Amino acid sequence: MSDDTLRSPSRRRWIRAATGAAAALGLPRGSTAQQASPAAPPRRGATMIGVPFAKHERVRFALVGCGGRGSSLLDDMLHVPGVEVKAVCDIVPEKVAKAQAAVEKAGRPKPEGYTKGDHDFENLCRRGDLDLVYVATPWNWHVPMAVAALQGGAHAGVEVPSAVTLDECWTLVDTSEATRRHCVILENCCYGWSELLVLQMVRAGVFGDLTHAECAYIHDLRSLLFQDEGEGLWRRFEHFKRNGNLYPTHGLGPVALYMDVNRGDRFERLVSMSSPSLGLQRYRDRALAAGDPKRTESYACGDMNTSLVQTAKGRTVVLQHDVVSPRPYSRINMLSGTLATFADYPPRIFFDASNPHAPRPRDTKSGHQWRKVEQKRKKRDKDGIENRFEHPLWTRLERDAKKSGHGGMDYVMSWRLVQCLREGLVPDLDVYDAAAWSAPAALSEASVAQKSAPVEFPDFTRGQWQAKRA
Amino acid sequence: MSDDTLRSPSRRRWIRAATGAAAALGLPRGSTAQQASPAAPPRRGATMIGVPFAKHERVRFALVGCGGRGSSLLDDMLHVPGVEVKAVCDIVPEKVAKAQAAVEKAGRPKPEGYTKGDHDFENLCRRGDLDLVYVATPWNWHVPMAVAALQGGAHAGVEVPSAVTLDECWTLVDTSEATRRHCVILENCCYGWSELLVLQMVRAGVFGDLTHAECAYIHDLRSLLFQDEGEGLWRRFEHFKRNGNLYPTHGLGPVALYMDVNRGDRFERLVSMSSPSLGLQRYRDRALAAGDPKRTESYACGDMNTSLVQTAKGRTVVLQHDVVSPRPYSRINMLSGTLATFADYPPRIFFDASNPHAPRPRDTKSGHQWRKVEQKRKKRDKDGIENRFEHPLWTRLERDAKKSGHGGMDYVMSWRLVQCLREGLVPDLDVYDAAAWSAPAALSEASVAQKSAPVEFPDFTRGQWQAKRA
Repeated sequence: MSDDTLRSPSRRRWIRAATGAAAALGLPRGSTAQQASPAAPPRRGATMIGVPFAKHERVRFALVGCGGRGSSLLDDMLHVPGVEVKAVCDIVPEKVAKAQAAVEKAGRPKPEGYTKGDHDFENLCRRGDLDLVYVATPWNWHVPMAVAALQGGAHAGVEVPSAVTLDECWTLVDTSEATRRHCVILENCCYGWSELLVLQMVRAGVFGDLTHAECAYIHDLRSLLFQDEGEGLWRRFEHFKRNGNLYPTHGLGPVALYMDVNRGDRFERLVSMSSPSLGLQRYRDRALAAGDPKRTESYACGDMNTSLVQTAKGRTVVLQHDVVSPRPYSRINMLSGTLATFADYPPRIFFDASNPHAPRPRDTKSGHQWRKVEQKRKKRDKDGIENRFEHPLWTRLERDAKKSGHGGMDYVMSWRLVQCLREGLVPDLDVYDAAAWSAPAALSEASVAQKSAPVEFPDFTRGQWQAKRA
Repeated sequence: MSDDTLRSPSRRRWIRAATGAAAALGLPRGSTAQQASPAAPPRRGATMIGVPFAKHERVRFALVGCGGRGSSLLDDMLHVPGVEVKAVCDIVPEKVAKAQAAVEKAGRPKPEGYTKGDHDFENLCRRGDLDLVYVATPWNWHVPMAVAALQGGAHAGVEVPSAVTLDECWTLVDTSEATRRHCVILENCCYGWSELLVLQMVRAGVFGDLTHAECAYIHDLRSLLFQDEGEGLWRRFEHFKRNGNLYPTHGLGPVALYMDVNRGDRFERLVSMSSPSLGLQRYRDRALAAGDPKRTESYACGDMNTSLVQTAKGRTVVLQHDVVSPRPYSRINMLSGTLATFADYPPRIFFDASNPHAPRPRDTKSGHQWRKVEQKRKKRDKDGIENRFEHPLWTRLERDAKKSGHGGMDYVMSWRLVQCLREGLVPDLDVYDAAAWSAPAALSEASVAQKSAPVEFPDFTRGQWQAKRA
């Protein structure tokens, strides 16, 4: 990385944009800890729970944020049938040009580009011809951009975390309800092969009654966080003043679906604890040259944050975040019930001896041995749980998904969302999920700031979390 | 199990004994939650930190509790050089006779038997010719028996958990200090091969600065808890009224040693959350015949209890307890620092790319792959961490230890304690460890009862936790 890169306009722009947006929305600049309050503001519109999309023969799509993540999402959308890419937006003109070129290279009409400053996304959202806008920008831009998309008449797909503060969570809920447009959290991990397999098993009763789950975002991002491009331009700053779980949804989203959160159960309470903040500083001191201005930064965020979440039904969830320690990647993705336990990394399962869903003798083992779960078709038992419980989306899409990011889950997510739009279905994920899964960021900060005191989740459904859904 | 077994005198005896002892000591009969208070009572004696044993050429040993666990400990002691078994005690005469026969079978003089009722252990402790008394009885007998041993002039080795309530923890501390005898927690897991390997690596700086650990007692005991013999006679009863981590020390002891707890750091605060209580009831409803009186029992203890512990240095520990779910055995035994992460089940390690202790290129891997840690000598790399950091106790004792219980850790534990007595060394584990590692039982109950509110650890060292030890 050269000094030129360090002082590149794009970096200064992002910083300015971020600070400006925070001020404009009245959001806190540093810790969001003080915002933890469970009181629900008065409802402005009817619920969006169970509201189907209107049927769309073609889905007119726009992308806001053409960086690494946005480019990957755009590439998926170019492979999903029935999608027209109408517009792309980024404050960096080169990124817009690259996105436009990618669309043209796929043999599609060139989408309109929006790149005139920090607020050109508002012009994109005002076009009036969009069905779906994806937001893939730095975290503190997610809510203003999603709001603009919804108010412009489109449905929004918002990257994770969808919101940073509890106020922002409520803003998403209220805007979705008022505009009658869906705000879908782009939680790709809900569409992972393992996660959907577990969800199918839960629904079939393989786990009996669920009691406990564990999930995480454990991903050594130290190198990325210090790059002078991409997420390195802004994501490290989140560690300056905030101390909690900065990125809760990759782990929590799938668990929320297993546990029917907002569909019969609810996240109710959270306690959180952070370890000392050492990882970024040590890495920086080793990796950066003397005199590098980053060496004067200080970091508030504990290396490992662990939160415990309790649901209304008393179930417990361990939720972790560590992006600065030398550890192999893991989202844990562990689920325990009265009849079975599953854990990932690598995927494995254990059946109670009484479990009627375990084929005998192949899938049950005496003693304390996990049974491997195999995604690869060639390695599976013919009548193993993989074949019996693989989610139909994966059976249908695996070949196409394999070309896509994150093991295919990205493609499955976007394909499924477009399917819901085209067939007029209720989306899998809605604004209440976006809010409930993103809220632990602010809640964990609040708990950590109060020496791990319990904090209550707001009920973003305003009392409508108990109804089961189809 | 026949109805005769169910109504056997031994079971009634244990119940009576347990209730009687609780009343005699003023201990609560049900939940211990209300006992969580960090205030230290006035000191009655000087500290026992760093106090060496007097040198004992021979160690005159007695065993109180000749059930499954006691018999196994006795067998180990018959193989440890320098031990004379002087006396054995149990309320069941047949168990005493069996223990005496085992000693004689080993070619040693028959030890005196104590089996005249619930309080004959007091007569054993009053003999005056004992150096070391092991206590391996139901949990609520640990403290009265340890107190009798210490007051009789012997050092005590107390099974886990060494105490159930915080008052009991203080009783152990005060009695050890007043009598100038050591109360050693028999935490065999501190002497496991993996645990001692990790401890050696911590001391050599392999992990850099420690930030976070995870540990547990995850052991499906459902079958055992419903047996009409052994621990089934009393251990299930602990689940009737208590809701928390009933058995914290197997996981927490080794972690406490890694983190120098009471040797430079201290457990300071705990929050705890329990999942619903379903496992025992479901198992019982499936496994027991209609009309079995156990089918009318109700259980308070949540299936999975998760606690978060913070140390004075800000480090965090996840501590779990689940003995009623269908899961493979695990104590987790995970440790994370700025330079490496270790996790067990199976044992594996990940080194930071900058770690000077990782031999290259064999022990470092790019990407997100754990490196296997091999206990088996034949499978090890010649210059791998296993050979470089194996604890000398294991290198020395492995052959003898292999015949012993729990993979050999039991033998290593007893051998080492006897070595400390014979050579006049400071014991590895003392009464402050017994108290600090057992306290999470009562503390977790208190936190769970208060919706996961933070509770403070008492400082059982009364301010002397900061000094490093040799």
